[in-house]
Amino acid sequence: ALPAGAQFAKPEDAIKYRKAAFTVMARHFGLVAAMANGKIPFDAKAVADNAEIAAVMSKLPYVGFVDGTDKGETKAEPKIWAEMDKFKAAAAKMQEEMAKLNVVAKGGNVDAIKTAAGDTGKSCKACHDSYRKE
Amino acid sequence: ALPAGAQFAKPEDAIKYRKAAFTVMARHFGLVAAMANGKIPFDAKAVADNAEIAAVMSKLPYVGFVDGTDKGETKAEPKIWAEMDKFKAAAAKMQEEMAKLNVVAKGGNVDAIKTAAGDTGKSCKACHDSYRKE
Repeated sequence: ALPAGAQFAKPEDAIKYRKAAFTVMARHFGLVAAMANGKIPFDAKAVADNAEIAAVMSKLPYVGFVDGTDKGETKAEPKIWAEMDKFKAAAAKMQEEMAKLNVVAKGGNVDAIKTAAGDTGKSCKACHDSYRKE
Repeated sequence: ALPAGAQFAKPEDAIKYRKAAFTVMARHFGLVAAMANGKIPFDAKAVADNAEIAAVMSKLPYVGFVDGTDKGETKAEPKIWAEMDKFKAAAAKMQEEMAKLNVVAKGGNVDAIKTAAGDTGKSCKACHDSYRKE
């Protein structure tokens, strides 16, 4: 929840913010997944650092889905606002998977990280399939 | 430093990433500054939480200033690449101020937070004045 007075000044500010948070999250999650899947060399510290950042980022975008931000420079499906509870539940699922990945990443076990990254990726995709335009 | 193989695939990816990281940082630093300066109501937990996120974000954008990203959708001044050491020093100064702000924010003293936020803002502005186009 936002502190009093911390609302975005304009709808486009909220859209820009949430897109930025997703962009940063995707970059860091993507590096973890690439290392877990052998697309780039595995580096235990880099995996842990990037998973940590991705987990921090996962909490940020959703304050940007305020009323009036279903149009403009966004790929968000308008049905998000018609079924906000379902959308928030899908977000919470992703946040939970990202938090699990962060814990597993600190352990340094490649197979466990690969599994957790796969689960996290599914939670990203589930939300994109329902709530993001092509 | 990036782990092996973690380079951005395309220059525009690096630009998009660094802009996104700055956008998220600016939002959270802005909330801290607004609370410290009485523009929105002071909330000790919100100040601490937002300063923490801003400090995490402050470390992220600079890997995006790779060679070949002085053109495209960016306001970065090309002289960044001619004087990268100076640019990195200005970035380090901002990161240092943001880290100090994060420590002070946890203390909850409004005047101290206001001072630290002012110092941090100066370090943002110094870099913008030299290295960001209007």
